[in-house]
Amino acid sequence: MSQTTSQAPDGCVRQARFDPRREKHFEGAFTQGSGYFHLRGSYEEGLIGAPQDERYMRLPANVTVETPRHPLSKWGTYLPGVTGLHPLLREELVNLPYPAAFRVTANGVCLDMALPVIGEYERWLDLRDGVLYRRFVWTLPDGAVLRCAYKRFVSQTRKNLLVQEMQYTLTGGVCTLDMISDIDERVTTNGYNHFTELRKTAEENRISLELETDTGDRVTMAGLTASVQARFAPAERGVGATVRMAAGDTVGVVKLTALACSRDGETLPPRERRRGEALRAGDRREAEHRAEWARLWEPAAIAVEGDAEAQQALDFSLYHLLRSANRADDRVAVCAKGFAGEAYFGHFFWDTEVYLLPFFLHTHPEIAKNLCGFRLRTLPGARENARAYGCDGARYPWESSVSGAEQCPNWQYADHEVHVTADVVFGLWQYYAETGDDAFLKAAAPVFCETARYWLSRVERRPDGTVNLNGVMGPDEYVCFVNNNAYTNYMVSRSLAYTLWALELLRESDAPCYASLGVTPALLDEMRRAADALPRTADASGVIPQCDHFDELEEPDFDRVWPDRSLPYGRCVPQEKMYRTKSLKQADVLMLPYLFPAAFHDAQVAANYDYYLPYTTHDSSLSRIVHAILACRLGRDEEAWRFFREALSIDFDETVGGAAEGIHIANCGGLWQAVVFGFAGMSRSYESDRPQFSPRLPAGWDSVSFRICYGGNRYRVRVTKDGAKVTPDAGVSI
Amino acid sequence: MSQTTSQAPDGCVRQARFDPRREKHFEGAFTQGSGYFHLRGSYEEGLIGAPQDERYMRLPANVTVETPRHPLSKWGTYLPGVTGLHPLLREELVNLPYPAAFRVTANGVCLDMALPVIGEYERWLDLRDGVLYRRFVWTLPDGAVLRCAYKRFVSQTRKNLLVQEMQYTLTGGVCTLDMISDIDERVTTNGYNHFTELRKTAEENRISLELETDTGDRVTMAGLTASVQARFAPAERGVGATVRMAAGDTVGVVKLTALACSRDGETLPPRERRRGEALRAGDRREAEHRAEWARLWEPAAIAVEGDAEAQQALDFSLYHLLRSANRADDRVAVCAKGFAGEAYFGHFFWDTEVYLLPFFLHTHPEIAKNLCGFRLRTLPGARENARAYGCDGARYPWESSVSGAEQCPNWQYADHEVHVTADVVFGLWQYYAETGDDAFLKAAAPVFCETARYWLSRVERRPDGTVNLNGVMGPDEYVCFVNNNAYTNYMVSRSLAYTLWALELLRESDAPCYASLGVTPALLDEMRRAADALPRTADASGVIPQCDHFDELEEPDFDRVWPDRSLPYGRCVPQEKMYRTKSLKQADVLMLPYLFPAAFHDAQVAANYDYYLPYTTHDSSLSRIVHAILACRLGRDEEAWRFFREALSIDFDETVGGAAEGIHIANCGGLWQAVVFGFAGMSRSYESDRPQFSPRLPAGWDSVSFRICYGGNRYRVRVTKDGAKVTPDAGVSI
Repeated sequence: MSQTTSQAPDGCVRQARFDPRREKHFEGAFTQGSGYFHLRGSYEEGLIGAPQDERYMRLPANVTVETPRHPLSKWGTYLPGVTGLHPLLREELVNLPYPAAFRVTANGVCLDMALPVIGEYERWLDLRDGVLYRRFVWTLPDGAVLRCAYKRFVSQTRKNLLVQEMQYTLTGGVCTLDMISDIDERVTTNGYNHFTELRKTAEENRISLELETDTGDRVTMAGLTASVQARFAPAERGVGATVRMAAGDTVGVVKLTALACSRDGETLPPRERRRGEALRAGDRREAEHRAEWARLWEPAAIAVEGDAEAQQALDFSLYHLLRSANRADDRVAVCAKGFAGEAYFGHFFWDTEVYLLPFFLHTHPEIAKNLCGFRLRTLPGARENARAYGCDGARYPWESSVSGAEQCPNWQYADHEVHVTADVVFGLWQYYAETGDDAFLKAAAPVFCETARYWLSRVERRPDGTVNLNGVMGPDEYVCFVNNNAYTNYMVSRSLAYTLWALELLRESDAPCYASLGVTPALLDEMRRAADALPRTADASGVIPQCDHFDELEEPDFDRVWPDRSLPYGRCVPQEKMYRTKSLKQADVLMLPYLFPAAFHDAQVAANYDYYLPYTTHDSSLSRIVHAILACRLGRDEEAWRFFREALSIDFDETVGGAAEGIHIANCGGLWQAVVFGFAGMSRSYESDRPQFSPRLPAGWDSVSFRICYGGNRYRVRVTKDGAKVTPDAGVSI
Repeated sequence: MSQTTSQAPDGCVRQARFDPRREKHFEGAFTQGSGYFHLRGSYEEGLIGAPQDERYMRLPANVTVETPRHPLSKWGTYLPGVTGLHPLLREELVNLPYPAAFRVTANGVCLDMALPVIGEYERWLDLRDGVLYRRFVWTLPDGAVLRCAYKRFVSQTRKNLLVQEMQYTLTGGVCTLDMISDIDERVTTNGYNHFTELRKTAEENRISLELETDTGDRVTMAGLTASVQARFAPAERGVGATVRMAAGDTVGVVKLTALACSRDGETLPPRERRRGEALRAGDRREAEHRAEWARLWEPAAIAVEGDAEAQQALDFSLYHLLRSANRADDRVAVCAKGFAGEAYFGHFFWDTEVYLLPFFLHTHPEIAKNLCGFRLRTLPGARENARAYGCDGARYPWESSVSGAEQCPNWQYADHEVHVTADVVFGLWQYYAETGDDAFLKAAAPVFCETARYWLSRVERRPDGTVNLNGVMGPDEYVCFVNNNAYTNYMVSRSLAYTLWALELLRESDAPCYASLGVTPALLDEMRRAADALPRTADASGVIPQCDHFDELEEPDFDRVWPDRSLPYGRCVPQEKMYRTKSLKQADVLMLPYLFPAAFHDAQVAANYDYYLPYTTHDSSLSRIVHAILACRLGRDEEAWRFFREALSIDFDETVGGAAEGIHIANCGGLWQAVVFGFAGMSRSYESDRPQFSPRLPAGWDSVSFRICYGGNRYRVRVTKDGAKVTPDAGVSI
């Protein structure tokens, strides 16, 4: 079958042909969502040979190196905050029944994209409004031809609503079309069934499903399927209809599904009311939805002149950032896979503070506030966590549940990657430094104090007066259990300094609040001493050792053990060898000039960059962005461009296929940073009162334009080869 | 009910009353076995509220700190070498159907030891012949009284045979006695069902069971139950009989069960033949069995004058050592729990070489040869293991399966506790040094060479000429991931030296064999260089640092975090704190003067002992023995006695209850060592051509006497306060 000219408009992400090896990637890449719920871009009818309810025991292996199950397809329907308890992976985001299910049989043949009788296949996601389209031609055994068109979106205005439209036109012959509309509950999460109770009923053209997960979360779904040409009625597993079509006939179907969960409120709304809501969404729903997406895009869009491909890839990343965040609910943050897959189990990482927050802070500060609010809300969990480790105060978990409890099933990270607690405080300070929001500072004060108390009980004070942070793992997870990790010590020192500043501000502005914190002069003194005494070493050449005795790690023999650089290094060597070798997943010393550019001279940045680069495997998706930004600063334009391109391709390039298990959402935030902090060279708002730019535009770009919020003001920025032009932006109110 | 005077003869281990909190301990302590198969000392009728087929997912947590399931009872029927594959724990020894099952109902009431109507309860295990007895009086609701006597043993001559005798005497009233004899297949191993196929049939008075495990091992059991007073016939779940008894009547039952498995040969013997074998065991069987146990005891017994309690506890340990080893089969070694429980999953550890081998070497060298033979047999697995870690040669697994594959489910031990490979070579050398067995040396030559090749590919050679062994864990598992662990380096250096000696001997004695090993002069040179250059440091005071930068670990605050010393330290602190603290599970530097007393001066031993003692938690059951032996050497008699007593109590003291999950078999071997190397002060046979003694008898002991095999000769040794008397022992042939 020949491919016709694409029907996808410019700026859409397009899949030009069905390829079983890439379906999972497109399912992740085409994920739609409203913040409230998210749906992977799977086919309505499923896929032959890809059952979704397979049971197996997924082990808590290293996500970087394990081979995921489900080679062909994995549905994904996620309500952030609705969880189940897995015996090994702990609390995980539950993959819910699939509300988009719509199976079709024509003249007795089941529709499946893997069949060779499917032609003129095309799918595209419109990044501007999150609407997903599919077109194809289906030739039946007797020669009859059905032209099929699918369209669906998760509404941005009625955030619990999935809207689907299916259209079938018979261009020749006759055809009996059987349709089943379903909410398919045959779904496991990472091979595990989390549904303890499930009831599904059908009545007239409506399907209703209620379930409870093994953590007690309850979910209901109500679906309505309607067609002018067909009458849907209860059928096997859902509601169904049969139509006899003659040449030229068209059958159009609309399916609306509304979701609700016990997290919405104390009690679920009565079933009838929910169904009513779903149905009242009239013709206005699509226009409202588009308008809302336009409002989301307005302060966040980046325009690249001269590089359509980069433009599209950037749009793709920003789309997923805007989709992932729930603006109305600070009880959830953005999970590591942007709610677009089962990897990382829906847990929340330090990604939030370091990779996501700057984007939201400078485009949608109200979302940034929600992300910070999540950490404030989960302080009780962090307190429990500190106690479990025999420490005072609050220790944020490496992988957070919705309650703030530690969920990381691998102890080397959970126990040792303590820097997350400092990163959280850094995030709160970022927000305050950007907004000057005193009410927020007051609300955050317990987090500042409690994390400081944690650090004071976690450090070791030696008789020689040094204060040490022993037995930690830095962001570079390929070296473990070290003393005085440079990144961790620096961040802890900073977080203590932020805490001291925050307390000083509070003492002046709100004495009763300050008094309620129970901060004694002795405590302040201890904080000051620890912040000063934590080793932050740099040798004569300016190279900062990653940790104590970093020089005693073995030199890597990459040429011998890692001949094929297209594979992750972590798959090529045993973990025990990695742990005793200078082979870095990401260079965590470079995180410091990346986060605090003003604190390091160019020469020192160059010295560290050059020292660590040969050891860095970039196995972490967080690595390349940092290198791209630092290479910009160092004027290494080609290298900056190479790292940026590689980072762009992680989820966007279908030949890389990185989106199969979900979106690398931190990398999406990093790409925004690479443009704004890298190519445009914008100053960090906690290091500068107003935006300053040192642009290093990529060779192929004529200009890049974007809007930013900075120090409470809005600006339009346009960067060309001649420099940056910054103008106040009255058009957007914060 | 009053307790009558004990019927147990002297020297038996006795349980005087039923106590639900101690049943599991006695089940482990009363384990019977023939080397071929082992049976925990559970009641024939089971126990109310203790189902044996509970399903749950046991996680590979730290065995030291986890709380085991099954609070009341856990049956155990083990055929060493018959395994199953657990999804998390890997290959594990399978707990087979319970062949001893015999359930009784009298006048409609089920017999259960937990009932208050059981009186005059007593159980004892005769350590001299492994026969287990039980006596009790059972008062029925109508006042009728049944006197019950049970007896059973696993035959030492027909090693696959379990013999049981039950006797019920009605002393008053009338009684209807219902009996069910069963082979109860309702058994899971660590909560997991490993039986993929199972068929059980009953015919006349015979039960037959066949099963296959999920690793493909096949097991058959054939049981015959007979009574003069009752006719057994197929009944629910087995064979049963009912007898009406009048006052004064006695019912006696004999049950014989034979086991066979696919490991016995290429094909299982036909069922009829197996049944015949079981039945042919005539009246001679008990006498033969006792005679064989006497032969086992003869070279191994230790006689303590003046301390009956220590005598009994020692007998208990030696009984389990003699029971655990299979003299006829070098395809299995002795698992960490002596095949008396499910902990450690039936895996084989370094315990074999360091803690068990000396006992067998000096009492039953033929068993020692089998244990060494196990390592020779599993060389292919060790080769695979080296390859999996990207190394040359052979790397013995931390927890070995029957094939030599790594089974340790926790990577920190599996990946890093590499010293086991040196320990294995040390074991082989011990055997050769003791026996001068040249044929064995030839057979072991590939192990010597292949392990040396492993070390040469595992060490790091720095430009400064030093050779380092990085990223290892020593025997002290509370400090992990260190460079140049003193114990490991010393043992590796030794094992390379042994290899060089072995090769030199072979070159002289068997040139063709030597040539077949492919050893080049360059390889020999590299071995020599590595053996010399591996750091083995001792500071001026003679204290050997446990590893590089040991001094940078934090000082423990035991008083704060470990106030209750009756609990393991490991339960009181989080692992991450342990890992950064000088808190030792066992002091691994002290392993060196323990194993190589001649290589260290008393002053240096004292310095190391004194330095490490305050840091040592003795959470490892292997720790106290080492301290007891070194304290003897240092003349610290009280301390030696205290450590010895504590080690004695681990499995023997019912208030400690250490045998609940199996026997600490390494500690049993250690207790023999404490008497022979400690109190008698015998020289190690690889350090001395003939036995030399420096006795330090405990204050309460008048004398201790034992036999030993040493340098190919047999001796009788009698140690008194006046010294040691050593006489040639013609009575026992090797």
